[in-house]
Amino acid sequence: MHTDEGGAPEKTAALKLFPVPTPDGKLTPELLATEAWGFGDEHRAQPLAVSIAQTTELGTLYQPDEIRAIADAAHALGMTVHLDGSRLWNAAAALGVPFRAFTTDAGVDILSLGATKNGALAAEAIVVLNPDNVDGIVYLRKTAMQLASKMRFLSAQLLALFDDGLGLRSAQHANAMAARLRAAIEGTPGLSFSQKTEANAIFGVLDNAVADRIRARYRFYDWNRARGEVRWMTAFDTTEADVDAFAAAIREELAR
Amino acid sequence: MHTDEGGAPEKTAALKLFPVPTPDGKLTPELLATEAWGFGDEHRAQPLAVSIAQTTELGTLYQPDEIRAIADAAHALGMTVHLDGSRLWNAAAALGVPFRAFTTDAGVDILSLGATKNGALAAEAIVVLNPDNVDGIVYLRKTAMQLASKMRFLSAQLLALFDDGLGLRSAQHANAMAARLRAAIEGTPGLSFSQKTEANAIFGVLDNAVADRIRARYRFYDWNRARGEVRWMTAFDTTEADVDAFAAAIREELAR
Amino acid sequence: MHTDEGGAPEKTAALKLFPVPTPDGKLTPELLATEAWGFGDEHRAQPLAVSIAQTTELGTLYQPDEIRAIADAAHALGMTVHLDGSRLWNAAAALGVPFRAFTTDAGVDILSLGATKNGALAAEAIVVLNPDNVDGIVYLRKTAMQLASKMRFLSAQLLALFDDGLGLRSAQHANAMAARLRAAIEGTPGLSFSQKTEANAIFGVLDNAVADRIRARYRFYDWNRARGEVRWMTAFDTTEADVDAFAAAIREELAR
Amino acid sequence: MHTDEGGAPEKTAALKLFPVPTPDGKLTPELLATEAWGFGDEHRAQPLAVSIAQTTELGTLYQPDEIRAIADAAHALGMTVHLDGSRLWNAAAALGVPFRAFTTDAGVDILSLGATKNGALAAEAIVVLNPDNVDGIVYLRKTAMQLASKMRFLSAQLLALFDDGLGLRSAQHANAMAARLRAAIEGTPGLSFSQKTEANAIFGVLDNAVADRIRARYRFYDWNRARGEVRWMTAFDTTEADVDAFAAAIREELAR
Repeated sequence: MHTDEGGAPEKTAALKLFPVPTPDGKLTPELLATEAWGFGDEHRAQPLAVSIAQTTELGTLYQPDEIRAIADAAHALGMTVHLDGSRLWNAAAALGVPFRAFTTDAGVDILSLGATKNGALAAEAIVVLNPDNVDGIVYLRKTAMQLASKMRFLSAQLLALFDDGLGLRSAQHANAMAARLRAAIEGTPGLSFSQKTEANAIFGVLDNAVADRIRARYRFYDWNRARGEVRWMTAFDTTEADVDAFAAAIREELAR
Repeated sequence: MHTDEGGAPEKTAALKLFPVPTPDGKLTPELLATEAWGFGDEHRAQPLAVSIAQTTELGTLYQPDEIRAIADAAHALGMTVHLDGSRLWNAAAALGVPFRAFTTDAGVDILSLGATKNGALAAEAIVVLNPDNVDGIVYLRKTAMQLASKMRFLSAQLLALFDDGLGLRSAQHANAMAARLRAAIEGTPGLSFSQKTEANAIFGVLDNAVADRIRARYRFYDWNRARGEVRWMTAFDTTEADVDAFAAAIREELAR
Repeated sequence: MHTDEGGAPEKTAALKLFPVPTPDGKLTPELLATEAWGFGDEHRAQPLAVSIAQTTELGTLYQPDEIRAIADAAHALGMTVHLDGSRLWNAAAALGVPFRAFTTDAGVDILSLGATKNGALAAEAIVVLNPDNVDGIVYLRKTAMQLASKMRFLSAQLLALFDDGLGLRSAQHANAMAARLRAAIEGTPGLSFSQKTEANAIFGVLDNAVADRIRARYRFYDWNRARGEVRWMTAFDTTEADVDAFAAAIREELAR
Repeated sequence: MHTDEGGAPEKTAALKLFPVPTPDGKLTPELLATEAWGFGDEHRAQPLAVSIAQTTELGTLYQPDEIRAIADAAHALGMTVHLDGSRLWNAAAALGVPFRAFTTDAGVDILSLGATKNGALAAEAIVVLNPDNVDGIVYLRKTAMQLASKMRFLSAQLLALFDDGLGLRSAQHANAMAARLRAAIEGTPGLSFSQKTEANAIFGVLDNAVADRIRARYRFYDWNRARGEVRWMTAFDTTEADVDAFAAAIREELAR
């Protein structure tokens, strides 16, 4: 939200963001407290909402009680809790619990539900879990987000992902492929990992020159070139053969 | 843009809109001049761009030379020309000329190309026709519009509409259905029309009570209830049978 | 607000303005109704507040019951009523009633109180008359208006204008000078007036070439050059001699 | 800008701020580099300008060559350099060099010049030092800042501060009073300092309870209560007697 959205929250919704450094992408009540202060002070932008991502931008996973602790702290301060769920199915698959255990039941007020990373075509939704804490969302959708024409074609995709477990199976597969990849490359000399692989992301650390050679064969992003960190993601359509070939390429280039 | 976008241009892009009243939805150089003034006056929001729609919100059609005249006037003032093409295929079908005749060749700098009304799923594009007059669009797309994930699935639809003439045939069909509908109801006592039918829209004027009875059978929108004006649109998937049944319903309810 | 603020309402507060044409600068419940509609329709920017000016931009004056009628209509629609009082003392002087008769008692919720045109130095205030309808104003002051440092120096001026009647006397004087000017030039061949002079403004209509000759001797603004309309304002520090000399200049140039 | 402006930069100018932690309130080219990256990447808000304050929010002072180094680094990246000079006279007094040595000649493109803290009434100015790098400022002034009415009364104050050295003498006095205060309390048991006193600010660290007892006698602000840090400022109108009495109060309360 702070790094990769081009300033859209500030520009589109006139929000001020107080970014909170965190080593593993996860917020805690203690970290929230470092910026959630100054209530009633006209000199400070008033802290209105906390936004967390599940899984996080670093591929890590909140346990339901971790989300609950953040939500309790936020609600005690009168703040609303937003969950960025662009990888929500991956989280559900990793946790093995129903969605509501780590959303509604954990105190989340409003949810971005992203189906695009899990096989849908342009289908994203804002899900208001607690209407008491969320006001005017239809107007915000129209002005600062997107009120899609022919929305039935988007809704049909979400229904398909939910109704028969397709979304969950797809995410389970993606997560399994990430685990398979990590197992295949763990321990390779010259490669370490900066984050746990708890869903479908692997954050590898390796020499930039090696990364560039691998990238000549497979497309992926640098995460932080200053420390040689790259991000490898798996998806619903990643195959075992894809993983095995990619792992082989990593090992080969590291061994050169 | 002024009426039905919920204030999005002002909220999202900090634009000020100077709406220009027009009887048929079409701008002219003379109408443009009523608001395009005050250049260099710090008290007046600087007129930077003119936005017109083809076909217009009232279903009417610009001839290429009418767009050219507006563009010339705008460019002479240092303004950029935006064309809202959410029904651009319908215009192309109605005019029977290539797109470029009433866009690039007519002086349009930037185009919103809407495929959704012509059969696509969430596929809209901003087309920069004159890069010299349009700067920073990739950043604006990310912050104030939408940078879709998996854009290839949207692009594929646009390619399909363009590559084999599908989009044009679809729009020709929609326009033909509107003409068929208008012919079928023209002259029916109690019904008049507030606009020409030049593409796929019919603006009917009739008693609100009659309109409500028709609406109980077919869904459509009031345009301006104060003057009994309704809008009937046809689309790529409207059939002759649809038209004939709807026309019959209109005549029946008007005759009751 | 729509013409001379450079788009600040849209840019700074993300407001959408629905300007309402009016021949004399005054709104009415009937004119309000032309734009205050679409409540609950997500496609329309929600009408939240009505803003009127007293005296108006055209120098005309609302009677207290005219403001009350607008406020009642606005409140019935759930809208808040803002009064732009950059010339509020002139209105009070012209009406001969206490401020509250045409503000608080007439249903105004929030008031911009301008002292600058009445002798103060950078002293303007937002006065919340009905706190029930106005929320978060201290934060809006800090972000979209101005929280002045050393505000006591501004407050002292407002106190001085209020405490001993200085502000009212100053405005009475300004209004008297406008009346004197109008009387001195009324009936001069080649000069007519587009608005009543109800406070300290005179809107004259005369040949542009004549206006330019007068302007070579005294500074004033064109209001609408297309119709030869100019605006002449009087102030707290305008003297009878100023008026008489200016009137003589007008008559001289018209007679040439 | 990030902490005490209530989100105004984001709300009013749609800016995204990348705050940079710094121990002494001073930026460096190295610190700038931590956020000034991602040029051309549409996912990242484009770094357009760097803003520094002289003196800083922590009362510290940039040497001219330190500002030059930042400006050179910023310009090399195509960024504009803004200097917040709300205490610019204090900096000039502390450095003993002409303004231009640490503004224009050091590569600053645009300057906020604050006279309010140095004796003026509502007089602040934006000074464009390098018009080549600053575009459209008159429109920004009108929409997102303040175009004061009767500006001559504000300009007169700035002229008075500049023309006869009044501003500089006032700031020299304020700085001398801060030095006198610091000398008078330096070494008092129970009191330390978190920042150098280079102009007119003293950042003291002491027990919160002691600070509260002093505050019962003299008004001042906590800076960071978590670490017992307070801010004491001197001004153009601080007298030696004020300083001595305040220093005595500090020593008394620390000794209790």
